[in-house]
Amino acid sequence: MTDDVHLDLSRQDRIGVREALLAGPKSVDQLVTVLDQADAAGQAMLITRLEPPQLASLPGSLRSRIDYDASSRTGFFGDVGEPEGEPEVAVVCAGTADRPVAAEAERTLAFSCVPCLSVNDIGVAGLWRLMERIEDLRPMKAVMVVAGMDGALPTVVAGLLPGVIIAVPTSIGYGVAAAGHTALNSALASCAPGLVVVNIDNGYGAAVAAQRVLSAGR
Amino acid sequence: MTDDVHLDLSRQDRIGVREALLAGPKSVDQLVTVLDQADAAGQAMLITRLEPPQLASLPGSLRSRIDYDASSRTGFFGDVGEPEGEPEVAVVCAGTADRPVAAEAERTLAFSCVPCLSVNDIGVAGLWRLMERIEDLRPMKAVMVVAGMDGALPTVVAGLLPGVIIAVPTSIGYGVAAAGHTALNSALASCAPGLVVVNIDNGYGAAVAAQRVLSAGR
Amino acid sequence: MTDDVHLDLSRQDRIGVREALLAGPKSVDQLVTVLDQADAAGQAMLITRLEPPQLASLPGSLRSRIDYDASSRTGFFGDVGEPEGEPEVAVVCAGTADRPVAAEAERTLAFSCVPCLSVNDIGVAGLWRLMERIEDLRPMKAVMVVAGMDGALPTVVAGLLPGVIIAVPTSIGYGVAAAGHTALNSALASCAPGLVVVNIDNGYGAAVAAQRVLSAGR
Amino acid sequence: MTDDVHLDLSRQDRIGVREALLAGPKSVDQLVTVLDQADAAGQAMLITRLEPPQLASLPGSLRSRIDYDASSRTGFFGDVGEPEGEPEVAVVCAGTADRPVAAEAERTLAFSCVPCLSVNDIGVAGLWRLMERIEDLRPMKAVMVVAGMDGALPTVVAGLLPGVIIAVPTSIGYGVAAAGHTALNSALASCAPGLVVVNIDNGYGAAVAAQRVLSAGR
Amino acid sequence: MTDDVHLDLSRQDRIGVREALLAGPKSVDQLVTVLDQADAAGQAMLITRLEPPQLASLPGSLRSRIDYDASSRTGFFGDVGEPEGEPEVAVVCAGTADRPVAAEAERTLAFSCVPCLSVNDIGVAGLWRLMERIEDLRPMKAVMVVAGMDGALPTVVAGLLPGVIIAVPTSIGYGVAAAGHTALNSALASCAPGLVVVNIDNGYGAAVAAQRVLSAGR
Amino acid sequence: MTDDVHLDLSRQDRIGVREALLAGPKSVDQLVTVLDQADAAGQAMLITRLEPPQLASLPGSLRSRIDYDASSRTGFFGDVGEPEGEPEVAVVCAGTADRPVAAEAERTLAFSCVPCLSVNDIGVAGLWRLMERIEDLRPMKAVMVVAGMDGALPTVVAGLLPGVIIAVPTSIGYGVAAAGHTALNSALASCAPGLVVVNIDNGYGAAVAAQRVLSAGR
Amino acid sequence: MTDDVHLDLSRQDRIGVREALLAGPKSVDQLVTVLDQADAAGQAMLITRLEPPQLASLPGSLRSRIDYDASSRTGFFGDVGEPEGEPEVAVVCAGTADRPVAAEAERTLAFSCVPCLSVNDIGVAGLWRLMERIEDLRPMKAVMVVAGMDGALPTVVAGLLPGVIIAVPTSIGYGVAAAGHTALNSALASCAPGLVVVNIDNGYGAAVAAQRVLSAGR
Amino acid sequence: MTDDVHLDLSRQDRIGVREALLAGPKSVDQLVTVLDQADAAGQAMLITRLEPPQLASLPGSLRSRIDYDASSRTGFFGDVGEPEGEPEVAVVCAGTADRPVAAEAERTLAFSCVPCLSVNDIGVAGLWRLMERIEDLRPMKAVMVVAGMDGALPTVVAGLLPGVIIAVPTSIGYGVAAAGHTALNSALASCAPGLVVVNIDNGYGAAVAAQRVLSAGR
Repeated sequence: MTDDVHLDLSRQDRIGVREALLAGPKSVDQLVTVLDQADAAGQAMLITRLEPPQLASLPGSLRSRIDYDASSRTGFFGDVGEPEGEPEVAVVCAGTADRPVAAEAERTLAFSCVPCLSVNDIGVAGLWRLMERIEDLRPMKAVMVVAGMDGALPTVVAGLLPGVIIAVPTSIGYGVAAAGHTALNSALASCAPGLVVVNIDNGYGAAVAAQRVLSAGR
Repeated sequence: MTDDVHLDLSRQDRIGVREALLAGPKSVDQLVTVLDQADAAGQAMLITRLEPPQLASLPGSLRSRIDYDASSRTGFFGDVGEPEGEPEVAVVCAGTADRPVAAEAERTLAFSCVPCLSVNDIGVAGLWRLMERIEDLRPMKAVMVVAGMDGALPTVVAGLLPGVIIAVPTSIGYGVAAAGHTALNSALASCAPGLVVVNIDNGYGAAVAAQRVLSAGR
Repeated sequence: MTDDVHLDLSRQDRIGVREALLAGPKSVDQLVTVLDQADAAGQAMLITRLEPPQLASLPGSLRSRIDYDASSRTGFFGDVGEPEGEPEVAVVCAGTADRPVAAEAERTLAFSCVPCLSVNDIGVAGLWRLMERIEDLRPMKAVMVVAGMDGALPTVVAGLLPGVIIAVPTSIGYGVAAAGHTALNSALASCAPGLVVVNIDNGYGAAVAAQRVLSAGR
Repeated sequence: MTDDVHLDLSRQDRIGVREALLAGPKSVDQLVTVLDQADAAGQAMLITRLEPPQLASLPGSLRSRIDYDASSRTGFFGDVGEPEGEPEVAVVCAGTADRPVAAEAERTLAFSCVPCLSVNDIGVAGLWRLMERIEDLRPMKAVMVVAGMDGALPTVVAGLLPGVIIAVPTSIGYGVAAAGHTALNSALASCAPGLVVVNIDNGYGAAVAAQRVLSAGR
Repeated sequence: MTDDVHLDLSRQDRIGVREALLAGPKSVDQLVTVLDQADAAGQAMLITRLEPPQLASLPGSLRSRIDYDASSRTGFFGDVGEPEGEPEVAVVCAGTADRPVAAEAERTLAFSCVPCLSVNDIGVAGLWRLMERIEDLRPMKAVMVVAGMDGALPTVVAGLLPGVIIAVPTSIGYGVAAAGHTALNSALASCAPGLVVVNIDNGYGAAVAAQRVLSAGR
Repeated sequence: MTDDVHLDLSRQDRIGVREALLAGPKSVDQLVTVLDQADAAGQAMLITRLEPPQLASLPGSLRSRIDYDASSRTGFFGDVGEPEGEPEVAVVCAGTADRPVAAEAERTLAFSCVPCLSVNDIGVAGLWRLMERIEDLRPMKAVMVVAGMDGALPTVVAGLLPGVIIAVPTSIGYGVAAAGHTALNSALASCAPGLVVVNIDNGYGAAVAAQRVLSAGR
Repeated sequence: MTDDVHLDLSRQDRIGVREALLAGPKSVDQLVTVLDQADAAGQAMLITRLEPPQLASLPGSLRSRIDYDASSRTGFFGDVGEPEGEPEVAVVCAGTADRPVAAEAERTLAFSCVPCLSVNDIGVAGLWRLMERIEDLRPMKAVMVVAGMDGALPTVVAGLLPGVIIAVPTSIGYGVAAAGHTALNSALASCAPGLVVVNIDNGYGAAVAAQRVLSAGR
Repeated sequence: MTDDVHLDLSRQDRIGVREALLAGPKSVDQLVTVLDQADAAGQAMLITRLEPPQLASLPGSLRSRIDYDASSRTGFFGDVGEPEGEPEVAVVCAGTADRPVAAEAERTLAFSCVPCLSVNDIGVAGLWRLMERIEDLRPMKAVMVVAGMDGALPTVVAGLLPGVIIAVPTSIGYGVAAAGHTALNSALASCAPGLVVVNIDNGYGAAVAAQRVLSAGR
């Protein structure tokens, strides 16, 4: 099965982030191969969408080296440092049910030792909750806004703050929420200028985008 | 062609509003037949989506009896009274380009002599504009919120006001705005409780719903 | 986990209904946090889409204080009064399979002590069933019409009654019923004037809208 | 260009109807070729979706032999007889704007000398109009129900009558009416048993289906 | 729960078929109520989409009176006669995997004692299989054509036979087969004239339509 | 404007076909720039989707060097040879209205001097027309099957012939034909094995694929 | 049940490949019937989408004669030879998670004794991986490119190689990846000329198309 | 009409960019009102999607103060400075037909005096064109990638460069290109990490996002 996997070990040098492992659709054999290659290359690896049964099926020697977070379904394989300094990026989360996606973004940043500010449960149905925190968010270079259902929060935030605002639609909702498509489309069609968007539930991608913003600022 | 048309003359008695004439997809011959039947029944008639070329093609004897408003593409055929009393309903409009739909709602109310408060160009990209007017809107029994693109405004309004909030998505926008479907879906999937929705660009329907609210309150 | 939750305790004052708890997509830890916050604030809480396994996973001290209805998947947390007076709103249900959504609407009203009239299994395939009940429905200020599949019933009802007619499409049906989208679109495109619509299976939202109608009438 | 066209001259023998000419997407040269081949074969031909500019561009020698109906955009090329006998099929039309599609069905029947009963403008927003005519429709072997927007009428009719009910959705409506897709889907998802459906605006196809029903009954 | 159910006992008189029970989305309590009402009215009942776990959950006194067919998931509740006479209708099935839908149609006919001819596994990828049987099918008054995937078979059959051709798209296939939507749309957009269509997997509806055709022929 | 255009002059060497010019969405200035660059490089160029007004707006010095075919909207710029030898590929066209797409494929082949067999108007509604020609098509290495509406023809052909069968769905049809999406999806979901598909109306792409097949056979 | 199945035993003679058995949607009884018919005809059979529970449910006498590959879910029933000669076709796979679809293509070729070159995990996010292998791929007559998510790889490959390039979109991805529809549409809309496409996850169909290419070259 | 417009004059202070005027869907009266308000506030204004007939209908006194660019359909109203310094952002454009969207981005930057590098016509069908310019792009803080059709270019670029990569899908293409939805979805589903996306044809939004990146870096 080794032939199935060719790690992109030069990615850090090219674009500033290491290759990550999207576990969900892979077999356990494939996961083992990837982690063994990473180990052989001396590279720590972020694992996303790692389902508990997948984790449980890994050999103990690999499993014991994974720092797993159940809420975000992420694992850190190998040694990872601590975030340092004051946060320059924030993760804003509309509803409690959106937390797993926000957590994926936070863990992605933590894997790269990037500190972040988390602000939760401030959906626009109770607008005062956002208004209470808006000044804390103003200095941020990038703000990830995680929201499902109507997806109105990214637009409201992008109209209030000057940083790079990254909408992360989530699949929370039912009926016409359409597994996140409505939140996605609302963010893309936003009347607030310069809002950018990533795929539904893609906390990982939003965090990498935020890292690109921070790199651009150095 | 007369056989093609059977006016629902008992509608006022059954549901409290007269039948209206949706002109857009009808031929001039069909419009003439409808207006002649209304005339014979002594009933004034609201005409919606009446395009200027349709108006111009009507016989002068009919055309001269139509009070036409180009912005909303509506006509009043026959005698219509004046709105009386203080407004109990409002039409809130997100952007300047949404005005024709808002105007259709306002004209529908005017045809039934219902006064309304109009508040324009207060989209959420500049949230302070809504906040300046929110207390004016608080006493309203029904508030129609007309918005295209992201459709975030109805959700924000429904989280702030106690009246019946009727979202009227508009077809303004491009790309994923999808001719109003994104604004529609965002309103339907709203996290704000009890928001109700009508078809895209349906200012007429929103106004009739508002009239039903007023009737229910009497 | 407490930081994930910020109850909107001022919602009752702002818009006339208390915040409700949509349980479905939340973890048990999150549900506990919400209920503890509500308890601390002395606020009863309506819980919607509470799945039996979620209920079973709650600590007994919370579970015992929840009045659970399996058909509608709703729970009342804390003390709730009794409906009083004659019904001014009705829930009309097209088919037996649509009952859970109708029940969610009824329970939402009951949580706020609003009496309602329930009329079931009167889909248009046997039109006489609706006709037998139409006079009972005529005085209602708001009528929620719960229907899946073709979604024809809301249009028929809106053509016969003067109250505020709120279509509640359901996900009942298969093939092109499309999990409720056809019933939804049929209601939005209705030829009956002033019909308003909520999201698929959103009995809760319809009932809140009906409460807004009742408030407007006072 | 002659090579582009091969008339299916044996269709009448195989399936009981002659090949028709769908003019809309064809060039004038192609139309001439088809009509010349029909002429050479001594076969009259029904032309559908023949736009006035296409008609005007045909050579006078062909144009003069076409009995054209502008409402339905149909033409009869060659000699066509008169309908005989009492109608066994009906065309029921929901709204005035749906008439062109109903007319296409009526003309298709007329081309085959099949008499039909036409009932117009009886949409369900004013249900009494249908009820007044339902007994006239009861003996019909096939009833085509032409309706756009919500598409509720075919379901109501199929619940009331025993004949073959053929829904003909039309593209009339706006927003979520979606150019007839909502009316189509509502008919396909109908709770009334045994309703059958043809493509949007396909009055021609509905009439051919009705002819198949009549043939089956002989 | 009795109030949830109102059988349409006059349906046989109105439209020629008895009400059937779509079991799938109903609770066991609801199924019991329906069957008890049917029993009290002395009416046999066709049950469709009855899943084995539903059947197993019924009280033994009801279960023992149900003639269940696992392939079609249908049950006959109460006494049902035998088909008599030569078949005038046929069920044509494209692939082996489409058989359950074809079986639902066959059982629906059997419940009404209508004999039918079944022709299976004659998809167009091996066209000779259809050609071998085409003369057997020519005299049929109605032919149901059950096909998923590309949905080409109904068009080919409708071009070859004079009876009423009823396409029954199935949800068999993957990717762009889209759970039957491609087969459905292909049948609706058919170049073969007069093809009529029912909902995806709706063998029941096709059979009722065929019964309407037979009734029209008497 | 010259900076806007960088011809891919090495394409012939890399993949065996020269870059072509898709004219439709380009401005006249852009077309001029492309043709001038081609001219400077001594390269003849195939122009596709060249609308007559675009052609008319080109400078006479360029226009005079374009061999334009109105049916296919293609132009040959510069010297092009004659097809030689017996056809090894065929273009099969379902209906007369599909001819422009078939013609685009034929012209693309002609630009590369590839002879082809054209077979027209053999849609499956009259299956005998295909059967008359099937033996002519059997020796072909590649067969492009151009069809709109139901898109059944590619499946039937792929079940009968051994060559590479390339489905070219067209936008011909209305309603659920959906501008070619139904024909596209029907071909992709085909039960006939090994059918390959190109974009809607993409006669050019089909012809290039056929050239790739011929190259592979050498 | 035997009547449900009619093997297309002449397929090899007509189009050069034997009928295969798509197991997924079939019952075990149906699978047994097909295999028994194949056995009686002395024909080996490729089984695709054979799920492990289906395999386990087959009678041991059949199961023991199936060479099953779990990754691709394929089985060879009966005797199959060995691939011979140098590969003239290749299977290129974008990501590790796409391997099962690639494996289905490889197994389909192996069933017909066609050797192939496999190149894995060379998605465009690390473009150097493709560039390292491009010269190995240049001589191939057909290249299947298996990719999900963005589906960019087939376009890049088709711009670099002269053979027949067959895109095989996969259902890998989430959110707007839409179960393979985005990869499918990206391949169909490709700016690289002559790219052909098969259904999502259809490794079998791609391999049959490649066999058609090889046959055309002989 | 003045009441229809409320300029968000504090936007520059809040989020760092001035309000722009989306002209397309507005009436001439509305455009005049906006420009008059801007003038009164002493604020220059970027006008986007200003169609030539709109420009021509403006009063001469306003028209003469607009610096109009026909390719991008943008106008600068009032005094605008010159870009200064070395470019830190780039606009990369896949095909010539995508230029108008790229030009909108460039003009938006120019309005704010932000210099940019433009790289055109480097679509992936001829990959060498991108490779020739990749080192020029490496130092950029933000790279807008403008591409329609398959939308493969943003993914390839995001895999090669470390800056913030902003995909701008365009509506160029036909058939399944779906007016830009395929390019949009391909970018959102990208396998390249951290790619962010704006609405179809939204060059303006991409440029504002790039300005947010530059601000974050200061």
